Amino acid sequence: MTLRTLSDKNARVVRLGKLSARRRARDAEAAFVIDGPVLLADALTSGVTVTDVFVDAERLDERTADALDAAEAAGAEVYAVSPDVLRRATDPVHPQAVAAIAMRPVVPAGTLAGARSVLALVGVADPGNAGTLVRSAVAAGFDAVVVTPGTVELLGPKALRASAGALFAVPVVEVDSVETLVATLRDASITTVATTLDAEVDLDAVDLTGPCAVLVGNEAHGLDAELTAMADVRVRIPMAGPVESLNAAMAGTLVCFEVLRQRRAAGVEVATR
Amino acid sequence: MTLRTLSDKNARVVRLGKLSARRRARDAEAAFVIDGPVLLADALTSGVTVTDVFVDAERLDERTADALDAAEAAGAEVYAVSPDVLRRATDPVHPQAVAAIAMRPVVPAGTLAGARSVLALVGVADPGNAGTLVRSAVAAGFDAVVVTPGTVELLGPKALRASAGALFAVPVVEVDSVETLVATLRDASITTVATTLDAEVDLDAVDLTGPCAVLVGNEAHGLDAELTAMADVRVRIPMAGPVESLNAAMAGTLVCFEVLRQRRAAGVEVATR
Repeated sequence: MTLRTLSDKNARVVRLGKLSARRRARDAEAAFVIDGPVLLADALTSGVTVTDVFVDAERLDERTADALDAAEAAGAEVYAVSPDVLRRATDPVHPQAVAAIAMRPVVPAGTLAGARSVLALVGVADPGNAGTLVRSAVAAGFDAVVVTPGTVELLGPKALRASAGALFAVPVVEVDSVETLVATLRDASITTVATTLDAEVDLDAVDLTGPCAVLVGNEAHGLDAELTAMADVRVRIPMAGPVESLNAAMAGTLVCFEVLRQRRAAGVEVATR
Repeated sequence: MTLRTLSDKNARVVRLGKLSARRRARDAEAAFVIDGPVLLADALTSGVTVTDVFVDAERLDERTADALDAAEAAGAEVYAVSPDVLRRATDPVHPQAVAAIAMRPVVPAGTLAGARSVLALVGVADPGNAGTLVRSAVAAGFDAVVVTPGTVELLGPKALRASAGALFAVPVVEVDSVETLVATLRDASITTVATTLDAEVDLDAVDLTGPCAVLVGNEAHGLDAELTAMADVRVRIPMAGPVESLNAAMAGTLVCFEVLRQRRAAGVEVATR
């Protein structure tokens, strides 16, 4: 592969910098930035549309070369850029040898209505938590994610890294309000499950084998009281020790895997894609 | 409470700065730094020996005042310092109004031998993951934590914050090697449980109602192959989706709560303290 080298001031390079640095730019273009060969390969495998790939030609190892080949085969343009460009556009702690611009996946209409298990992020603020929750939900066989306006951007750099590619494997639906979330799930006959510390029912005492949505709230404030009251089911995670509560990502992960456990035990099909 | 105000160059203030910034200083003095009134109150409730408390007198809200009263009642000295001192000694993202120096708890001999459920951190490198894992384990009723040399410092600032006080509620045993870890647990007839992706047995198919230790390895490399081979039980966490693996903190949390679930189902006593 012969690469065209772009200067640091080239318009495409400038666009990469803007997209990696600013959510506003990502929103305006419905695009996002992928950093590193592993995430890039994951994105391509999942059918994400990658338009531009930027590589430090001095750091072209086998894994990176494979990812570049796959990107080119999928129609992306591949360019060589300076290490500085990649240092600015990728993880500041572990700068990567490759970055790419991709288009936000178009979410099929009716995604929520047809889902069997939904992770609903309602005000999750930490990108690491949000990405990790998606990783757990996808691992547990969940087939849709829905986010409300107060939730951190899932296709931002930190959440993307924390999801370890899982964000490419599941449709993410954005709703305009908590009310829309509740109404959409209700119309689709999907049971909403809220975890609260003062619920009277234990998580494993509730039947979660039917279509359900796991609600996860803000790390500091938990789920909104009104939303908790509106949920079809309120459960508490059984605990035994002198701890007031769990980390939001841990609590959400436990609920997702309880859904999977019950479905496996009941012989309900779980792997949907 | 009339507070003596210390200058930024006072020896006690300098010591606070060193202990908050450097692990070597903490190791040398067997001391650590607690930041914020919530963690301070948790530490005092758990009987941690707090020696010096530093407060920004301009930010003395009720919760902080209560924590200071409790610290004084427990024998700590309380001093007023400048906001700069606290900015340097506490969470840089959310500077706290209070910081304290405390002594590392002395771990009773025989802690591991008498434990019913142990969280073993074997090379966990991220302080957020390590603290969160301790929080989950304590919530699941675990009664001891053991760390090997390659594991991040649990009483460092980030792990302490991530544990949300759980680190004060459980004895943390340091062992000098993985071999010592295995031998100690074996001598105590505690079953070691390793999670691996290629295990043939599902997590919920193994009896975890007896004394057991959950082994959690490094985030990037997982558990050492030799240690995995030495473990009494190798399990895989059942997954359903297109994800290769789980975040180490999530995987460890799922195993801890499976232990709790089985013990509750079997009517085995779980709350030990």
